[in-house]
Amino acid sequence: MSSPAAPASHNSQQCLKMAARSLLFPIIIIIITSTTIIFTPPTLASQPLNHLSSKRAPRFLSKHSYPIKTQLEEQQQYRYESKYFYQQLDHFSFLNLPKFPQRYLINTDHWAGPERRGPIFLYCGNEGDIEWFAVNTGFVWEIAPLFGAMVLFPEHRYYGESLPYGSREEAYKNASTLSYLTAEQALADFAVLITDLKRNLSAQACPVVLFGGSYGGMLAAWMRLKYPHVAIGALASSAPILQFEDIVPPETFYNIVSNDFKRESTSCFNTIKESWDALVSEGLKKNGLVQLTKTFHLCRELKSTEDLANWLDSAYSYLAMVDYPYPSSFMMPLPGCPIREVCKRIDGCPDGTSILERIFEGISIYYNYTGELHCFELDDDPHGLDGWNWQACTEMVMPMSSSHNASMFPTYDFNYSSYQEGCWEEFGVIPRPRWITTEFGGQDIKTALETFGSNIIFSNGLLDPWSGGRYAAAIYGLQL
Amino acid sequence: MSSPAAPASHNSQQCLKMAARSLLFPIIIIIITSTTIIFTPPTLASQPLNHLSSKRAPRFLSKHSYPIKTQLEEQQQYRYESKYFYQQLDHFSFLNLPKFPQRYLINTDHWAGPERRGPIFLYCGNEGDIEWFAVNTGFVWEIAPLFGAMVLFPEHRYYGESLPYGSREEAYKNASTLSYLTAEQALADFAVLITDLKRNLSAQACPVVLFGGSYGGMLAAWMRLKYPHVAIGALASSAPILQFEDIVPPETFYNIVSNDFKRESTSCFNTIKESWDALVSEGLKKNGLVQLTKTFHLCRELKSTEDLANWLDSAYSYLAMVDYPYPSSFMMPLPGCPIREVCKRIDGCPDGTSILERIFEGISIYYNYTGELHCFELDDDPHGLDGWNWQACTEMVMPMSSSHNASMFPTYDFNYSSYQEGCWEEFGVIPRPRWITTEFGGQDIKTALETFGSNIIFSNGLLDPWSGGRYAAAIYGLQL
Repeated sequence: MSSPAAPASHNSQQCLKMAARSLLFPIIIIIITSTTIIFTPPTLASQPLNHLSSKRAPRFLSKHSYPIKTQLEEQQQYRYESKYFYQQLDHFSFLNLPKFPQRYLINTDHWAGPERRGPIFLYCGNEGDIEWFAVNTGFVWEIAPLFGAMVLFPEHRYYGESLPYGSREEAYKNASTLSYLTAEQALADFAVLITDLKRNLSAQACPVVLFGGSYGGMLAAWMRLKYPHVAIGALASSAPILQFEDIVPPETFYNIVSNDFKRESTSCFNTIKESWDALVSEGLKKNGLVQLTKTFHLCRELKSTEDLANWLDSAYSYLAMVDYPYPSSFMMPLPGCPIREVCKRIDGCPDGTSILERIFEGISIYYNYTGELHCFELDDDPHGLDGWNWQACTEMVMPMSSSHNASMFPTYDFNYSSYQEGCWEEFGVIPRPRWITTEFGGQDIKTALETFGSNIIFSNGLLDPWSGGRYAAAIYGLQL
Repeated sequence: MSSPAAPASHNSQQCLKMAARSLLFPIIIIIITSTTIIFTPPTLASQPLNHLSSKRAPRFLSKHSYPIKTQLEEQQQYRYESKYFYQQLDHFSFLNLPKFPQRYLINTDHWAGPERRGPIFLYCGNEGDIEWFAVNTGFVWEIAPLFGAMVLFPEHRYYGESLPYGSREEAYKNASTLSYLTAEQALADFAVLITDLKRNLSAQACPVVLFGGSYGGMLAAWMRLKYPHVAIGALASSAPILQFEDIVPPETFYNIVSNDFKRESTSCFNTIKESWDALVSEGLKKNGLVQLTKTFHLCRELKSTEDLANWLDSAYSYLAMVDYPYPSSFMMPLPGCPIREVCKRIDGCPDGTSILERIFEGISIYYNYTGELHCFELDDDPHGLDGWNWQACTEMVMPMSSSHNASMFPTYDFNYSSYQEGCWEEFGVIPRPRWITTEFGGQDIKTALETFGSNIIFSNGLLDPWSGGRYAAAIYGLQL
C-alpha cells in the first residue's frame, strides 16, 4: 500500500512532484493544507517490549502539543463569537440529569442568510478545546465566503469548556460522571444544537455540511450516516472509521508510519528500529536512567525507560501524521516534510555517534524545532485522566499492533484481555469493543463503502504522500 | 383523502370491490390480511368536552384487547422457540447498570442457512408481549418459506418478559427505572441482538429484512434509517412516523376515523357526534351515573362520564384501525367490515330508541361480538402504569386534536402545556416533544421521503379502504 524504501534523492523528487500535483488540484491542496487534522497514535499499542508495557488506554491529541493560546495569538484572522447551548446530558434516557453548557463558535459574516439558503458549515468538534480545531481548520474559513456559508464549531462534550457537572474536576470524577462521554451523545448534541439554531434563525431550509478531521472526521462521517435529515454531506478527513475489531489488520497503522520513515531513508528506519534495544540496555545499566536523562536533556530524572519510549513513540507517530510538505504548527511548530528533516539529522551525525544520540538529534526536530527548550518534560498532561483515555476504554477500542519486520516500533501484539484489565484499573469500566461496529457498521468493507457512499468525502483517503492519507486509504481498502 | 358519505348499498359494493381488488394483488392482500398491525388511538387526544378532560398520556395497544392466551391457543400453526439475550440497559452511556434478558422468538425451519445466504426476517417488537405480535403477523410466517428465511421476533424492552431490574414491578417502579424505555434503546437492542446472532451462526452475509406495524412499523422504518449496515430494507405497516410536532395537522387522525363512519352512514356519524352531549346531560342528572351504568351494562357503577366516554372513544378508534373486510381477532373478535356492522346497529334501532341506547347497540359489536359478556369492565388495565404511557410522556409526543366539524368526537385542542403537566403528575418526567424529529427527521416531507426512500415500504400508505392505510397515506402526504 505504500512505496518501498527508496533513496533520498528519489524521495526529494517525489516530494516535489507531489507539491506540483497539488498545484494542479487546488481544491485538494486546500484540503491538505488546511483541514488535515491528524489521526494521532495510541500509546498503548506502541508499548515497546514486554518490560516496557503499561496498560494505559490509547491517547490521541491531548499530549505534546503546541499551546493553544500561542496558536490563538498567531491566528487572529479567524473571527468568531463564543456561545453556549444547554444540552441534555443523556439524550437517550430520561434520567433526571443536570443539563450542561455546550460551547460553540459561530461566524455569520459571510452567511447568505435563510432567504438565499446560505449553507451552514459545521465542524464536528473532537477531543480537545474547540478553539484549537477552529484555528487549525483554515479550509472551512477559506471556503465559507465562497459559498456564503455560516461557520459553526460546536465543542465536543467533556472537552474544553463544554463540561457537565459544572467543572472539569466534577465531570472527570469517576466512571459514573464520565459515562455520558460517548460519540453517540456528541452526535446528538450536534443534531440538537443545529436543529435549534436553524429554527431560531428560520433557517430550516439551509443545508448543513459537516467537516471534521481524525476523530472529528469519524464524527462527521457517522453524523452523515445517522442524521441524513440534518446534514447533506460530510468532509471526513483522516477518519479511521474502520480501525475497530478485526476489520483492518492491527499492524496497519504502525506499518504505514514506519514506511514513512523507511521511504526517506532505510538507515534512518533501521536506526530507530534498533534504538529500542539500545534504550532498554542503557536503562538496565548502573546509573542508566541518569545517563538517559542526560542524553535526552530531560528536565527531571527519568523514572523508567518506558516513559522515554512512549515519548519517542508519540513523536514518530505524530510526525507521520503531520508530515506536510510545508511548515506547520498544528501539533508542534515544524518544518515542511519533517520526517525528512528528522532522518537527515539521524543519518547526518558524525561517524561514531551512538544510536541514542542520533535519536535525540532527530527527535529534537519534533519537540524543539524552534530551539527554545533547554530541557524536556516527558509528561505535560498533569490531569492524568483525559477524556480520550476514557473514550478508548469504553467504545473507541481500536486494536493496534506493531509487527516484527515491517514496523520500526517495538514488536507488540494487541491483547484485548490486558487492555480490558487496564481500563478496569484506570476507570472501573469495561470496554465494549464490538459496539462501534454494531452502531456505525464497518465489518463488511463493501457495505461500509456503500453506507458511507452518500455525500461523504474521505479527503485523505485519496492522497498518497502523507501518512494520514495513506493510512485512511489503507483502512478503507482503496488501492492507490 | 377519503370518500364522502355514501349509502350502505354503495358501500357494500365498495367492500366487495376491494376484496376483488385484493385477489388481483395477492401480495398486497397478504400484507393486508396478515401484517396490518393497527395504529391505535391515544386517549388523551380524544378527551371529550372540557369537563370530561383528563391529563392522561395517550395509550396505544394495551387496553381492551382480546386475551393473548386465547389467541395463542387459536394460532397453533406458528411454531417458534423462545430464547433470551442479555442486553445492556443503556447502550449510549457507560453507567454500571444491570443487564436484562431480552426475549426473542426464533424459527429456523425454513432457513436456507448461511452458505445460501438465507435471509433473516426480523419483526421489530412493539409495545406489548411479543407473542401477541407473532401470532398476529401471519404475513411474515407465510412468506418466510418462500424466501428460505429465518423468522425472528425480538421483544421490545420493558414489555412482555423483557423486563429490566428483574420484574415488572421493579422496572416500572419510577421515572429512574423507566428512563431506559426509549425507541433508540430498543433499536440498539435489535441491532446488538441480530449482530451477535449472525456472528454466532456465521451468518454475517445473510441479509436482514425488517417488519413492523404501528409503533413496530415506526421502529422498522427508523431502524433501516439508523442501521443501514444491519438491515437492507423494511416493511413498515401503518407507521405514523410523521405524527410529531406540527408535521401533520393534529386533526388528521380523528378526521380519518370519523370519515370511516361517515362513509358508512351519515346518520351513524351524526348519532355518534351527538352522543357526547347526551352522555354529559345524562351524567349530570340525578342518578344519571346509575342510569348510564344500566344503559351500557357496566359491571360496576360508573364513577364519571369521562370513563365511559374514553371507553367509547377507544372502541371507535380501534374499529377504524381494524376495519378489515374479513373477520379478524387482533384486538377483539370482529366481523368483516366491522364499522359497517356498528352503523347498521346504530341506524337500525326502532324509532324512538334513544341516542345512548343506539350507541350501546353499536359498541357491542366491538366489545361483545361473540355475545359472551353480560357486563363490561371499563378499565381492564390493573397496572395503571403501562409502558406506552411512559413512552408517550417522554419522546413519543404525538399531538392529536379533534376538530369541531369534521370529527365525530368531542372537540378537543391538543395543548402541550397541560400534556406536559399530566406527564409530570403521572411520572415525574418532562417530555421532549422535539426529540423524535431531531433524531429521526420528518419536518420536511420531501427530505423525510428521501430519507426513508431506500428500501422501505410503507405498506398501508398506498391502500385506501382501511383507516390504517388512509391514515398512513395522509400523514405521509400522499394523494390516493
